[in-house]
This record gives sequence, C-alpha cells and structure tokens, in this order.
Amino acid sequence: MPKTIVQKFGGTSLARREDVLRCAERVAGQRASGDQVVVVVSAMGGTTDELIGLANSVHAGGRARERDLLMAAGEQISASIMALALQALGLEAVALTGPQAGFTTDEAFGRARITSIRTARIVQELEQGRIPIVMGFQGATPEGELTTFGRGGSDTTAVALAAALNVVSSGGYCEIFTDVDGIHTADPRLVPGPPLLEQISYEEMLELALQGARVMEPRALVFGDKYGVPIRVRHARRPGQGTLITTMEQTMERPSVVGCALKENLGRISVSIPAKDANAQAHLFEATANANIIVDDIIQTERGDHVDVAFTVEHNDLATVRTAVGEALVELGIRDQEPQVEIGLAKLSAIGTGMKTHTGIASKMFRALADRAIPIRNITTSEIKISCLITQEDAQNALESIHAVFQLGTPVDERLGQTPE
Amino acid sequence: MPKTIVQKFGGTSLARREDVLRCAERVAGQRASGDQVVVVVSAMGGTTDELIGLANSVHAGGRARERDLLMAAGEQISASIMALALQALGLEAVALTGPQAGFTTDEAFGRARITSIRTARIVQELEQGRIPIVMGFQGATPEGELTTFGRGGSDTTAVALAAALNVVSSGGYCEIFTDVDGIHTADPRLVPGPPLLEQISYEEMLELALQGARVMEPRALVFGDKYGVPIRVRHARRPGQGTLITTMEQTMERPSVVGCALKENLGRISVSIPAKDANAQAHLFEATANANIIVDDIIQTERGDHVDVAFTVEHNDLATVRTAVGEALVELGIRDQEPQVEIGLAKLSAIGTGMKTHTGIASKMFRALADRAIPIRNITTSEIKISCLITQEDAQNALESIHAVFQLGTPVDERLGQTPE
Repeated sequence: MPKTIVQKFGGTSLARREDVLRCAERVAGQRASGDQVVVVVSAMGGTTDELIGLANSVHAGGRARERDLLMAAGEQISASIMALALQALGLEAVALTGPQAGFTTDEAFGRARITSIRTARIVQELEQGRIPIVMGFQGATPEGELTTFGRGGSDTTAVALAAALNVVSSGGYCEIFTDVDGIHTADPRLVPGPPLLEQISYEEMLELALQGARVMEPRALVFGDKYGVPIRVRHARRPGQGTLITTMEQTMERPSVVGCALKENLGRISVSIPAKDANAQAHLFEATANANIIVDDIIQTERGDHVDVAFTVEHNDLATVRTAVGEALVELGIRDQEPQVEIGLAKLSAIGTGMKTHTGIASKMFRALADRAIPIRNITTSEIKISCLITQEDAQNALESIHAVFQLGTPVDERLGQTPE
Repeated sequence: MPKTIVQKFGGTSLARREDVLRCAERVAGQRASGDQVVVVVSAMGGTTDELIGLANSVHAGGRARERDLLMAAGEQISASIMALALQALGLEAVALTGPQAGFTTDEAFGRARITSIRTARIVQELEQGRIPIVMGFQGATPEGELTTFGRGGSDTTAVALAAALNVVSSGGYCEIFTDVDGIHTADPRLVPGPPLLEQISYEEMLELALQGARVMEPRALVFGDKYGVPIRVRHARRPGQGTLITTMEQTMERPSVVGCALKENLGRISVSIPAKDANAQAHLFEATANANIIVDDIIQTERGDHVDVAFTVEHNDLATVRTAVGEALVELGIRDQEPQVEIGLAKLSAIGTGMKTHTGIASKMFRALADRAIPIRNITTSEIKISCLITQEDAQNALESIHAVFQLGTPVDERLGQTPE
C-alpha cells in the first residue's frame, strides 16, 4: 500500500515561477517513488502583503468577510499555478479551494477555526490517480461563506488534512517546505551556527513557536500533537532531511534544554487595581480581547490593598492596548491612574521536555544572565520552559549566553554522553 | 418604489486605487438618489493579463478547470476591494462570488454558459439595505466547480443579472462603465470625430460588436435583446450619458446606416472539395469547432464538379486552423491539396436596421470603394449589414470612404431631415 504524504509549500517556496517549477518537480519525484501525494499551498511570496496593501489603500478597516474573500484569492492563484505546473510535467493535478477540499469552519472571519474536514473529494481524486492541490488557509462556513484561518494558516491546513486523511496509518507524514533548513537550537540569524535538531517533540516545538521561533504555526502543532501526525520541516531549495517534529518516547534520554528562542519588540503595560474588586482582571482582559490584542505573559503581584497586573504585548499593539486598558479602568471606576507603558523589551526562553526530569535549569539560566550583568524584569515558567523578560538591548548578549551555558552549540548525542547538566 | 440599477465596471475603470474609489463614489451617488444598486465588476485592469502570463510561464496548456480557478481570482480581488471601498464610504456592501450570486453554468470551463440564476441571495442582501458586489465572468457547475464565461464575460453577468432581477419592472436598467464615451458611428481611433449615438438597437449593436466594435460583448447583447434590458454604455471617468442600447420602435424614422465597423487582422482559408461529397462541409467545420476556432464568414462557390469553400479567421488562429483543415481533408480522402491561406485581410461593415426599408445601400457602398480603387475580395450581407472583405492596407481608407458616403459624421437628426439616402 502506498504511503500518503501531505506536502505543504509556503509563500517563500513559491515566490517566483522557478520556485513553483522546483516545488512541482519535488512533488513529481515523491509521486514517482510510488507515494500518494496531497499538496497544500500558501499564497505565492509577496501576494498576501500586496493584497493587504491594496485593501488598506482603500479602507484601513472594513468587514472581515470581504478581507477574507480578498486574501483567499492569493491561494486560489498559487494552487491553480501549481496544478498547471504539475500538468506540464504530465501529471494529473486538480486544484481545490478550501471548501472543495472539505474544510468547514466557524464564522470567525479572519481567524476561523476548522470545525470539520470532509475528505471524500480528496480521497476520490487520489483514487482517480490525481494529485490534489489544496488551497491552504481557507475554508467555508456551513452557509458557504469563505473564511480564512489567519496568518500561517496553511500549516494548519496541511497538518489538519494529514490528520483527517489518517496518513499515519499508511506510514505517511506531513512535510512543511519553507525557507529554513529545519529547527535549530536558536535562531541562526541571532546566534552563529546553531546545530540543526534531527527531532523535536510537539510540545517543545510548540513552546519554541509560541516564544518567538517563526518556523511553524502553533495551531498546526496542536493538531499534529493531538492526532500524532509526524511533521517534517525542510528547506524547499536545499537538500537535507530537516527536522522531524514527532512524539518523543518518554524513555528516550533527552537533554534538559533543546533550544532557546527570543521574542523581540515587546512592550509591557502595568496597572494597579483594588485587591477587593473581583471583576477587575476579567474586565481588563475582556477589553484587550475585544480589541483583538494577543496578550503574552500576565504577571500579578500583591501590594497592600492593591494588586499590580502587568502583561506584555507586541510593540505594534501598544497604542491600541493602552486605549483599551485606559477605557476599562474608567469603566471599573478607577479614575486616578493611567496604565504604565514600557517599551523596548524582549523575552528570552529556554525550552526542553527534559526539564521535567532535570533540576537546576532555572538557576543555571539566571546565573548565566547575572554573569553578564543582564537584569531580569520578569520571570515566567512552565513545565518545559523558562522565560525571562529583559531589555531589547541585552537580548542578543543574553541569547548567546544561554545558548552557551546549555551547550546548545554541541550536537545532542555528544551532550548526552557528558555529565548531566 | 426604488429603481433597481445594475452598474458594471470594467477592468480599465478599476485599474488603480483612485479608479476604484471613483467608481465607489459613483455607486454611492446612485444609491443616495434612492435607487437600489447591484454592482458587477471585472478584474482590475491588467490583472487578467498578469494571471494569464503567469499561467503560460509554467504551462502553455493545462486543464481549463484550473485556468478558470486562476482567472476567477481576478474578480475575487476586485469585488472585495470595491466592497471595502464602499464600506469606507459608510455603505454596507457585500462581495459575492459568482456561485454566491446564484450563477449556475454548464461545465464548459473557460467558456461556460449560464444555465440559471438564483437571485434569492442578492434580493435578500438588497432587502437588508446592502449593496451586492458581484464578481463578473464566473459561476459554478451544479457540482460546485468554478467556471468562467470567457473574455468579456462580466458584461454578460451584468445584463443577465439585470434580466433575472427584472430591473425593467422597477424602471431600472443596466449600466456598463467602460473607457469609451459610448457607441460612435465608427471607431474614433480610426475615423476622426465620429458622432456619439444617443440610442442604438440591440441588433445593430450586436452586428457592430460582431463586426469588430469592441465596446460590448455580443453574448451580453443577446441577453439584453431577449429580456428587453435597457443597457447604457458610459465612460467611467468622463461625464455624459453615453449610448442607450434598447428596443427601437419600428415606427421611428431611422437612417439606413447607423454605424460602420472594421475587423482587422483576418486571414482566409480556402479549400476545394468534390461537389458530390455531402459530408465534406460538415466534417470541415466540425474540425475547426473541435480546434476551438471561431470562424467568421463562410463563402461557398461552385466550379464544375468541385465547390470552393473559403472562410475567414483571426490571424492568431491561422496556424491551428490550417493544421485542423489539413487533417480533415486527409480524413475526407482529399490528398491532392493543401488548404490555401491568405493573410492581411480586413472586413468592413456598414450596419443599420434602416436597411430593411431602404434600397440602394449596397451599391452605394460598392461605389464608394470603387471610387477609391479598393478591390473587394468577398461580399456578405444580412438584413441589417453589408460586409466587404478587403486588404488590411486599404482598410483605413475604405472605412473613411463609407463613413463619408453614409454621412455618418452628421448627427442623425440632421440626416433625417434630408432627402432619403
């Protein structure tokens, strides 16, 4: 029985005609090896930004419904072109819109969530020997309104489709072709020559993605984890097997930290609210949610009869969030203060499932920063990550220090032979 | 009761951001006067050619189904942008794909024909006070496959929609906004200062369009005629009422010729077939139809036991048609001849419903050409037009001569006051 493989090509992999032809040849090669291939495409590189620019030139706002129709045109173009490129190679390829590929979503235009995937059409096309080219990032409501999943949604399309097609049962997997060689121990643009990871677990990858690594979309990783879809991240133009994101066996010996990530250009908002007001936090963060702001870490500390609530957001969102929080304070009857705003911050995170079974990771990280005289503004932790909020100026220095202290420049195999960290 | 008006904006009217905003303001103005407005859009100027260029860069051929998906993206972009532009003016506008607007077609990808229009969604949007922005040129098969109508299909969308919505019953009509002031007695690029016609009948406009006037799509005119939809052709950027295409009352006094048209860059294919072969003509033109060639006039003359069949096609189609006809001859067992091919021809036509009741029009046209020593290669006539095939070199001179002899430079009113032509 042939394996079924979902191959997803991102925008940078499809920027120009030559890129499309190269990707088509890759699909043809996979097919020639006897596998069933389902292709998922993003919009061709630059298209999405062009469309957004065009939209904003006539209306900075407007209904999300029409913006979704506009954005979805990008994948309609790239999928059709990819299908034609495969047809030019003598293969039968069929471009499918999100709805034709069976993607049904809720009605949250611009950030729709998949509610079901009917795979009948794709299965039928595969049975007829065709290669389905699925437009990523889009679906439709049950009423037939086109929706999009938000930025990076094509990764979600690919992994969700691999899950719905149960590719694992055929020995298949999902491949994400992009413009990086795979997952490194740190961003290669910030740290010189970080090793490429052969494997990484879903939860580690999810934390890396959430803490600033742009390689994969967190939502897609959640799908991968939930349905156990192996995901291989590879470079579209270079050789190499990339990194396999998969379930790591619990028995496998793992280093405490597999990678680190930096989230830059953050701002912090702080407010002080009466400790006795049980409604305050809920109201505050309803206000940011209504303003469509993604809030990063939230920290609350007590001070007498008041609590100090601080949270980080991206710089781009600062103005909006200050207004929203200011209004929320007034609604709460807190009229004597303006939200405090601090800019120029960055969040440094060390991530690894090995932390669950190792001790002393946090202190090692704090020591590394202290040795370089880098003040820590906030600390947040989870089972598999430690994050420190620092200033943007210290970010590069701090990243290098923890990359060094956790020996991330040394391949995993060699590290495991040494004394435990 | 408000009038319902369908306003169609062509690609040149939507080339740049400023053009879209101007068209949006026109729609807003019409709406402000109390009318219901349904908008139909083509792809923004240049988009269609860009998409075709992109497709051809990866595959000169390929399935029509994927080419349709690709082309339809052009209208998806323009309709969304137009909707956002109207929303920026504070109006509720809703962009609708061809299928959402109720257009069902047959499965002839690339040249699909409308089989039905369900107007329920558009009517519902109008009732809710919204302005529907319909993507022209597209529909879907009953199975949900996206189809396009072929070039110029947005005119057809607009007029067919005006018919389906029965805009006439509300005193409404269909407006086609384009890059010309309306319909002139001849192409203003070829004859200096031809007058603009205030009105023209469907059949005259249809003949003008078929004989080379590019202003409107013949299919749209057939819909207009069949359902009696008044069509106003106007310039999108200039003032003026343009030309109204409508049913002309029979009693109205009409000049014999209302306009003339030139179809350039034609080639002629001639073959000689045995007169006794009853199957030959059918087989020949099945071959051209299968090659998707649009055949212009066909002329057959007898010569002994053979008949000479000649027909004209556009230069672009000559190579394809010669191959198709050559193969058809072999299949017919006619092995001793190659099809004769002649290039560099043009067809000059004089058109007017008044011809039905006037005499001497043909001789007047032939005399005009003879006076300028222009040889006529073929003559074809219908009830309301006379066409002469001439060489491309004589075309400009010939057009000017008949524009003059039928006094087309003089306004209709003045001509009718003179002695009958």
